[in-house]
Amino acid sequence: MSRSVTIDDVARAAGVSRQTVSNVVNSPQIVREATRERVQDAIRRLGYAPHASARRLRTRRSSTIGVHLNPYTGGISGVVLDRFVHALTERAGERGLRVMLYAARTPDEEIRRMADLSDGGDIDAVVLTDTFPGDPRAEWLIERGLPFVSFGRPWGADDLGAPAHHWVDVDGAAGTAQATRHALQAAGPRVAFLGWPRGSATGDDRERGWREAMGAVPGLVRLTSEEYVANARDAVAAALPQQSLDAIVCAGDSLAIGAHLAAVAAGRPSLPVIGFDNTPAAEALGLSSVEQLPEQVAAGTLDLLLGSGTSIVPRAAEPGRAHVLVTPRLVVR
Amino acid sequence: MSRSVTIDDVARAAGVSRQTVSNVVNSPQIVREATRERVQDAIRRLGYAPHASARRLRTRRSSTIGVHLNPYTGGISGVVLDRFVHALTERAGERGLRVMLYAARTPDEEIRRMADLSDGGDIDAVVLTDTFPGDPRAEWLIERGLPFVSFGRPWGADDLGAPAHHWVDVDGAAGTAQATRHALQAAGPRVAFLGWPRGSATGDDRERGWREAMGAVPGLVRLTSEEYVANARDAVAAALPQQSLDAIVCAGDSLAIGAHLAAVAAGRPSLPVIGFDNTPAAEALGLSSVEQLPEQVAAGTLDLLLGSGTSIVPRAAEPGRAHVLVTPRLVVR
Repeated sequence: MSRSVTIDDVARAAGVSRQTVSNVVNSPQIVREATRERVQDAIRRLGYAPHASARRLRTRRSSTIGVHLNPYTGGISGVVLDRFVHALTERAGERGLRVMLYAARTPDEEIRRMADLSDGGDIDAVVLTDTFPGDPRAEWLIERGLPFVSFGRPWGADDLGAPAHHWVDVDGAAGTAQATRHALQAAGPRVAFLGWPRGSATGDDRERGWREAMGAVPGLVRLTSEEYVANARDAVAAALPQQSLDAIVCAGDSLAIGAHLAAVAAGRPSLPVIGFDNTPAAEALGLSSVEQLPEQVAAGTLDLLLGSGTSIVPRAAEPGRAHVLVTPRLVVR
Repeated sequence: MSRSVTIDDVARAAGVSRQTVSNVVNSPQIVREATRERVQDAIRRLGYAPHASARRLRTRRSSTIGVHLNPYTGGISGVVLDRFVHALTERAGERGLRVMLYAARTPDEEIRRMADLSDGGDIDAVVLTDTFPGDPRAEWLIERGLPFVSFGRPWGADDLGAPAHHWVDVDGAAGTAQATRHALQAAGPRVAFLGWPRGSATGDDRERGWREAMGAVPGLVRLTSEEYVANARDAVAAALPQQSLDAIVCAGDSLAIGAHLAAVAAGRPSLPVIGFDNTPAAEALGLSSVEQLPEQVAAGTLDLLLGSGTSIVPRAAEPGRAHVLVTPRLVVR
């Protein structure tokens, strides 16, 4: 029995990277024509069957999308993912598809679960959540040829022009930019940013939107807090007596709630504080917040998986469209 | 082709109610022996096959539990159901079972979805949520013979002694009683209750716990609010100048947040306010709240569906055990 042809064999034969082979298979429209032809030629010559599993599943289709559900860890932001799962279930149902949940505590465990479900014909596509740079799950899915879309960008070199895989995400920078412009107009020029410690892709992206909206003014105030209400409250309580602030734009609602509590304690209950995620907690406190629109994320996910049809296809539906970037919306309270 | 035998035929033949037939089939241990024998005799005589569908599914088992997911409607309390789904997915996975979600906007639509999933062999059991008196879904499931457990009691005449079906629920009265005893001890004798307008089974149950813990003292203060933070804030703001209160026990966290905001505005930020559901919003504000322990609800659900095994069985695992009532836990902050 001969060893079956792998994506690495094709890449070597065509003189391209694994990634390029994957792109030719999954998103041919994003690969230059000459390269595409060379790779397709190698695929034919070697008899590489990238979507054997996907094809098998399409014939005895489960019409089911697997979604990983993290263990519940408390905190207020998990609600965005839960709303996404709600919306995905509703919209998938309208298109005759089902949603199956699975639990896993590590990426390796998640890969084993996806393999089991795919082997058993239980799912024919996957939605990845909580992606991170160098995510082994994405690599495994590409190798396996199992159609998938991630909620969260691949965090590669060029996610917009040449993404490693299909993805849907929310434009965090656009959200904080909206929030900052609103605060500048409604409150005054000194709009601070309260963010997490630097180094998280999501947090850095949200900070960028604030910086861009503030422009080249001197003396920008950037406060830092871990993702805890009490920590955010302390950070803002320490800053308020020293800084003259008109408003605070925050990287998340937990930070915003802490900032608001500090403002109330300092006798400034109406200091505008804007959060991110539009959680029920922010709503209950009457805080403005950037709404991620999980319903649009769910719609974008299905569009990438299905195109305009109802059958899961292992590539982008429309040429040139391998991602959906949802522009969030500021909810003013 | 002869008409197939229905549950009504068996009930008539045995001279019992439909419900009793269903109990004999699903929870024989809760039916008196003489009655059980009479019904089992009629089942044999008429050739009634209550679990044809379940048996078929057990042979080509999907090992999948269907769970209905409501559309997301905002508000802070949906998080309890989401946590339940998280926990159910985790624990089901540990026992080799999967969880499939489906969406439906009305009970009739939900019945159609359950029928589709069951016909297609996609699920072999169901977890009902948001049960209400006279729920047509429960009736349909009993008739169909599809194993199920409800999160929420049947709200029948004797849910503990002779339940209409298997159920898991949280003992709301025990939760508010704990909260009330804590407030009496920590704050003082004048503990008010802030509840929803009367007539909701859940709300009335939670009020009962407060009344029982207060005992026969005169002048109990019972405030009412719709399930909105602003409404609760107004109700408590109106009451505070007129009543001398030591603490407020609330039917839910939205009410508690409103009560807390009113207390802060009235210059009493440390008035003890205790919520129910232990939502992230209450946690963020540092409010005490009764925790429903959705993880225990999920464990109870699987125990009733599976017993100690890993195969879904259409009856209670342990004789005499057709429900699980979880005692919630007060989280003091």
